Amino acid sequence: MSITTLELRSLATPDGQLRLTLEDVLVTDPGPDEVIIRVDAAPINPSDLGTLLGPADLTTLSSSQSSGRPTVTAKIPPQAAAIVAARVGKSLAMGNEGAGEVIAAGDNATHLLGKVVSVVGGAMFTRYRKVRVADVLPLPKGVTAKQGASAFVNPLTVLGMVSTMRLEGHKALVHTAAASNVGQMLNRLCIADGVELVNIVRSDEQAAILKAIGAKYIVISTAPNFREQLIAAVSDTGATLAFDAIGGGPLAGQILAAMEAALVAKNPSITPYGSPIHKQVYIYGRLDLSPTTVAANVGMAWGIGGWLLTYHLARIGAKAVLEARERVSNEITTTFASHYSREISLAEALDPDIIRAYHRKATGEKYLIVPSKD
Amino acid sequence: MSITTLELRSLATPDGQLRLTLEDVLVTDPGPDEVIIRVDAAPINPSDLGTLLGPADLTTLSSSQSSGRPTVTAKIPPQAAAIVAARVGKSLAMGNEGAGEVIAAGDNATHLLGKVVSVVGGAMFTRYRKVRVADVLPLPKGVTAKQGASAFVNPLTVLGMVSTMRLEGHKALVHTAAASNVGQMLNRLCIADGVELVNIVRSDEQAAILKAIGAKYIVISTAPNFREQLIAAVSDTGATLAFDAIGGGPLAGQILAAMEAALVAKNPSITPYGSPIHKQVYIYGRLDLSPTTVAANVGMAWGIGGWLLTYHLARIGAKAVLEARERVSNEITTTFASHYSREISLAEALDPDIIRAYHRKATGEKYLIVPSKD
Repeated sequence: MSITTLELRSLATPDGQLRLTLEDVLVTDPGPDEVIIRVDAAPINPSDLGTLLGPADLTTLSSSQSSGRPTVTAKIPPQAAAIVAARVGKSLAMGNEGAGEVIAAGDNATHLLGKVVSVVGGAMFTRYRKVRVADVLPLPKGVTAKQGASAFVNPLTVLGMVSTMRLEGHKALVHTAAASNVGQMLNRLCIADGVELVNIVRSDEQAAILKAIGAKYIVISTAPNFREQLIAAVSDTGATLAFDAIGGGPLAGQILAAMEAALVAKNPSITPYGSPIHKQVYIYGRLDLSPTTVAANVGMAWGIGGWLLTYHLARIGAKAVLEARERVSNEITTTFASHYSREISLAEALDPDIIRAYHRKATGEKYLIVPSKD
Repeated sequence: MSITTLELRSLATPDGQLRLTLEDVLVTDPGPDEVIIRVDAAPINPSDLGTLLGPADLTTLSSSQSSGRPTVTAKIPPQAAAIVAARVGKSLAMGNEGAGEVIAAGDNATHLLGKVVSVVGGAMFTRYRKVRVADVLPLPKGVTAKQGASAFVNPLTVLGMVSTMRLEGHKALVHTAAASNVGQMLNRLCIADGVELVNIVRSDEQAAILKAIGAKYIVISTAPNFREQLIAAVSDTGATLAFDAIGGGPLAGQILAAMEAALVAKNPSITPYGSPIHKQVYIYGRLDLSPTTVAANVGMAWGIGGWLLTYHLARIGAKAVLEARERVSNEITTTFASHYSREISLAEALDPDIIRAYHRKATGEKYLIVPSKD
């Protein structure tokens, strides 16, 4: 048996171009502990975009055809050259996760033949993918590949937020950009697990999305009484941990200051050091690339830092990761369900207009690559 | 036996004044596990000033005499009212630490009579102080009270920095405002213990102070090649932990960015997430009250937060604290020696000109209260 797949690749060239192509790649026979998946669905996550599009200037996107295959290029600004230096000249296969049917299996994996499985492990923007058995998770009977395509990144992120909360001794959460796909999933998880969650959004429309799915605490950052509302919400919930998808600007510091104000209001401090209770913001996204600012009104027991799913998974260990993945599999059509605003083919993923659309990361928008559409 | 002491007090009044006074206070007989110290020397640390002077506007200092005792007042700006709310109307005794001779002892503490001891526990800006035996540390024979007056705050701070480095898996340190009393002591400790230390200072004069005591890595933040010099120093030392006394402004973020640049230069990253090695800055002082800013060029494995000696001591536990204090006692005239630019009486500590002088926290300046001068 010999299979050729069509694989989406991203290349940074020495002359400062980002180039996306579809490449023919031979998939060799599976080893004893390997399977070959027909990839039926793979989501485009924000975490894919950093490598897929890099720091390319999307106003310079330009597409062409060669032997019937699309190629799209964009300029990498000179000031971003250092960021991509390590990947120049390396054609990178894209796509963190996806799902599909097992169409071939090594000697130790024949029980998986015909099963629909979710896969994590990269290079999923492709028609066929050979992976180790350890990297697949069979989905419950009746669950489709489209339903199971996003069983890793977003579900393990929201589970990781609650897990971090418990590991670090906090009892409630704050989340920003809270009407996002991750934010909606986090609300479903927190409702299911009885965890209080303060949702920060920018608009009434985003607040309405969350209200409709049962969110209890919603604070609008553009409202004139934002500070008071946030203090009241963190005071009610006792939240001392926040996950921030925005990163830049004053919001992370404002959250810490609100937590500090709520704590000091409950236990006034005679010292100039404020509350001794630790307040933490983890930045897990960078929708805003400007500097993060933290004012001096946060006391002395505070922290702010980066949070990356892979670092968190290394922290909790393989056993806890497997347990989390099994929970996701069991609740993939409820707590961890994903919805897609559009299904696109591999070729369409290289269309400049579509690239600009999925790069926008607009609230509620999420694209799913369906290779069978090609 | 009945002793009356003269105690320096700080009071925030309901009408927005800060008032420093000297009060007569009766010192009752010591209990079985208590001793009375004649306080011979007590330093004015930066950590005393936050409570002593609060957020008072020192341009409004005004002094008067009543029954031969000085009183000094200053206005607390209305916007700082919330900061002092919890202490309004409470007359607070001042002075974190000091040293003196044991002049009276309870039944279980007679072995301490006549000994020179260092004391931590507050209210040390006074002539006589009753404390629990657990709060005193006998100084080695021949060590004077002036030599032993600063055996707690600065020594345990620098030991805490190295202890934090080890607890959190770092192998070298960065320190800012590094020519300070704490900074010079940290250099002596790091040289004694073989820990590499990158010193950040603002001027050639400050660099010269550190060079004279054997500092190896000194970087001047006002130099045009500051960034390159800092990257080179953190690269050479492998420092991934910094203690920052300045707090506000871009410096903490610049340190994280330099650490990230040094790590990525050694191990280029194909992902947009940068180095997976954690980089940390702890802010332990706030010489600059403006917001702390951290740009997006620090990767995802980073943290910044407050560090307070009392929180650190709670973290390491009583046994480790005692071991640290015993080391300080043994090396109080070498590694942990303090030098004072001026000795003042309790009454002089209430002189407006002297207040402005010790509030300046100028490099190399440190004031010692010597109650016997009154």
